[in-house]
Amino acid sequence: MSKKGTNSESEKSITSREADYAQWYQDVIRAADLAENSPVKGCMIIKPNGYAIWENMKEVLDDLIKSTGVRNAYFPLLIPERFLQKEAEHVEGFAPEIAVVTHAGGKKLTEPYVVRPTSETIINDAFSNWIQSHRDLPMLINQWANIVRWEMRPRLFLRNTEFLWQEGHTAHATEKEADERALMMLKMYEDFMREYLAIPVVSGRKTENERFAGAKETYTVEAMMQDGKALQMGTSHNLGQNFAKAFDITFADAKSGQQSFVWQTSWGVSTRMIGGLVMAHSDDTGLVLPPMIAPTQVIIVPVLSGKAATDKAVLAQADTILDELENEVLVRVLVDTSEERVGAKFFKWEKQGIPLRIELGAKDMEAKRAVLVRRDTGEKEEVALTNLGARVADVLGEIQAEMLQRAEKMQKAKTKTADSWDEFVSLLESGHFVLAHWCGDSQVEREIQEKTGATIRCIPFKQKAEKGKCILTGKASGGRVVFAKAY
Amino acid sequence: MSKKGTNSESEKSITSREADYAQWYQDVIRAADLAENSPVKGCMIIKPNGYAIWENMKEVLDDLIKSTGVRNAYFPLLIPERFLQKEAEHVEGFAPEIAVVTHAGGKKLTEPYVVRPTSETIINDAFSNWIQSHRDLPMLINQWANIVRWEMRPRLFLRNTEFLWQEGHTAHATEKEADERALMMLKMYEDFMREYLAIPVVSGRKTENERFAGAKETYTVEAMMQDGKALQMGTSHNLGQNFAKAFDITFADAKSGQQSFVWQTSWGVSTRMIGGLVMAHSDDTGLVLPPMIAPTQVIIVPVLSGKAATDKAVLAQADTILDELENEVLVRVLVDTSEERVGAKFFKWEKQGIPLRIELGAKDMEAKRAVLVRRDTGEKEEVALTNLGARVADVLGEIQAEMLQRAEKMQKAKTKTADSWDEFVSLLESGHFVLAHWCGDSQVEREIQEKTGATIRCIPFKQKAEKGKCILTGKASGGRVVFAKAY
Repeated sequence: MSKKGTNSESEKSITSREADYAQWYQDVIRAADLAENSPVKGCMIIKPNGYAIWENMKEVLDDLIKSTGVRNAYFPLLIPERFLQKEAEHVEGFAPEIAVVTHAGGKKLTEPYVVRPTSETIINDAFSNWIQSHRDLPMLINQWANIVRWEMRPRLFLRNTEFLWQEGHTAHATEKEADERALMMLKMYEDFMREYLAIPVVSGRKTENERFAGAKETYTVEAMMQDGKALQMGTSHNLGQNFAKAFDITFADAKSGQQSFVWQTSWGVSTRMIGGLVMAHSDDTGLVLPPMIAPTQVIIVPVLSGKAATDKAVLAQADTILDELENEVLVRVLVDTSEERVGAKFFKWEKQGIPLRIELGAKDMEAKRAVLVRRDTGEKEEVALTNLGARVADVLGEIQAEMLQRAEKMQKAKTKTADSWDEFVSLLESGHFVLAHWCGDSQVEREIQEKTGATIRCIPFKQKAEKGKCILTGKASGGRVVFAKAY
Repeated sequence: MSKKGTNSESEKSITSREADYAQWYQDVIRAADLAENSPVKGCMIIKPNGYAIWENMKEVLDDLIKSTGVRNAYFPLLIPERFLQKEAEHVEGFAPEIAVVTHAGGKKLTEPYVVRPTSETIINDAFSNWIQSHRDLPMLINQWANIVRWEMRPRLFLRNTEFLWQEGHTAHATEKEADERALMMLKMYEDFMREYLAIPVVSGRKTENERFAGAKETYTVEAMMQDGKALQMGTSHNLGQNFAKAFDITFADAKSGQQSFVWQTSWGVSTRMIGGLVMAHSDDTGLVLPPMIAPTQVIIVPVLSGKAATDKAVLAQADTILDELENEVLVRVLVDTSEERVGAKFFKWEKQGIPLRIELGAKDMEAKRAVLVRRDTGEKEEVALTNLGARVADVLGEIQAEMLQRAEKMQKAKTKTADSWDEFVSLLESGHFVLAHWCGDSQVEREIQEKTGATIRCIPFKQKAEKGKCILTGKASGGRVVFAKAY
């Protein structure tokens, strides 16, 4: 395999990561035609190329979620304002972000409705009717829905006034069972992100400051973007009995018959993952997608010469390859027979992140071969037509594996320990996950954020017991936590 | 096969169709646990059993839609109020039904947002940016989304303030192509309803009174419920250039380069279809689902005797059957090993409309057979275990075909022609689709509605040319239209 030369055309339209990472991100999304800003402040339009990625994510996650016994349902978009007020921390957390319907059907409403910023309240109101006895538990419900949280500094996929997500809501007879469920779903997210998105994550607990409004414990998976900043890719909450008490969700115990409050969880991932996918893998040429989640995994580009007879044979061979890949190798594949010139085609599909390109021209036909070009590395490889299906399957597997390896390598390289304040600040400034000691005081955490712009992304599950001194106060600490600037 | 006796238990909880059709509908939904009213006025909660039906509908329709070259995307839930006002008929039609967000992020908005009652405006605003040249056409987009239309007289699935649907939106270079697309999608709906829902429909054009607000032509598929009333199951609109002009969507013509307005369509079906499914097939025992759309097609009920050894063998055999049906016959199947008594299990799954029950007890084991019980007819049949998989597949096919036949038979029996006013009124009162002449005057149509409560469901595509006299005015008419009371 030989290294492909840089495509000069791409540099015109996509700002380099080094020059301006934020602009690069916008450029990649535009060049791959994933999404755009809408005339509705903070809301995006998810275009077909972007939505196809979401559909693939949904399909995989939906199966994974259902395989744990959860069933899908659908609850109202609009939530009576008084519901939100039942859980004190919850309303405090969400009040600044809510959109309110005050008029409908031509009249002012006697009670305003909130457009759901999350559905704990409306779902737990239903749970209070649905759950009577221990036989109704565990209650395991998931919803795919749109969510509205008013966003002052919107960024495509990462922060939008409206986004799409799944939100799981469960109720259990015991605290232990609820906590196990919350951790089970976090592990499911972690595995999904590694296996499908080729993104390694750091999983752990959130500090009190960063906890979901109303949760007893928030678990998180944090991914590193190429600039060393963190993106919270998904969260899972142990809600304790907070909502059960607010919404009076009780069940009759199996043995004693006594009424007890249920123990609950909620957990979700959203279209934000698409932003993470873009920032974790893409390059200065455009989008790079891992094969497992790419809507189109292979693009076949016939290279035509203008000679009718040869071109006919090339196109026929392209169709044969399409058929074999689609129906035997079970690959998501397209053939590009448009009238654009070949260079423009290569460039177009590179920008869109198709993992593998197959080039096929007259010379290739003569030599009974095709050329494979990897999007992630640019490597080219000649493959005999007789071996093409098997090789394509292998290369797609190699791309998937190597994309994860590269992301892991970067994560490792940009994760550092710091024991002095100067080192700590310098590592954060240059884009790192910084493992540092913290005394456990929420006020200190806020001070560190004010001074550095970084937050504690999580107290990692894999935290080693290690005596040390808080990076700001010097007070005693029993282990390092993960600090980073975050999206 | 022998006819099953009436289940006396069912009559306790479900009102008969004859006694009170409207109450029966509510009772069937409750007994099958499909949905319930929410604390949000007019909004329903779609429970897991109901949502699973929607998921099956979505999966089939999504494939059908995509197979015609349409791609999914997602547009904002919130629409600037001024967008709605750009198309005069459109805003007039929807103004009474809209919900308005006036406050968000803790502030009063300078411009209010409407919660989408349909997305023509926000999507066509995007199309005006996306479409420049003939090469951008046809533009074929679909969206799966939630919709809010303030509803004064809500009924589960049939009329709700919030419902789920797909809405397709297309733009074309010619009027002919747009009209063909509108008709193609209507035909797709018709085929889906016959093949999957076992519901025959009458397809045709809407009159001006019943047209979608802003459409040039609305095509519809109308299904007959068991009470002889009509349910509009889906519509497809030829929008002409109305929205193109309102949103300035033009393209440069291939030959002349001249700017022309595009020709457009939109088309949709919604969770309303679930209401149609309930009302078309169910009986006084509860829900009856056609196998092609049933989330669970077969329920296996082991009949246990209390003798440990025998019961163990029965349960093992049930598992073997489950495995065979699931993995070889590819049937959606469950086995009920809960602790309820057998009669309660039978009753439960009948109410939920599972098409086929397999009973397996000690005697059956001895005779190396199982008993199949059809939900739709109650017919029982003993089948040798060696032949079970093949027979289950056949019986499911028979149920599907016969459910359609019964629905067609009813549709035929309750579709009558009327040539006198008294006959017309009497047929409408007793629940019929009435084929009658109409002079084509919108005001006359409104008068007929005021006098009878019936509307023109459609001018059927299969309308025979036939000279006659308008049922109200006696004026000349060239063919019969379909009148009916409707949900």
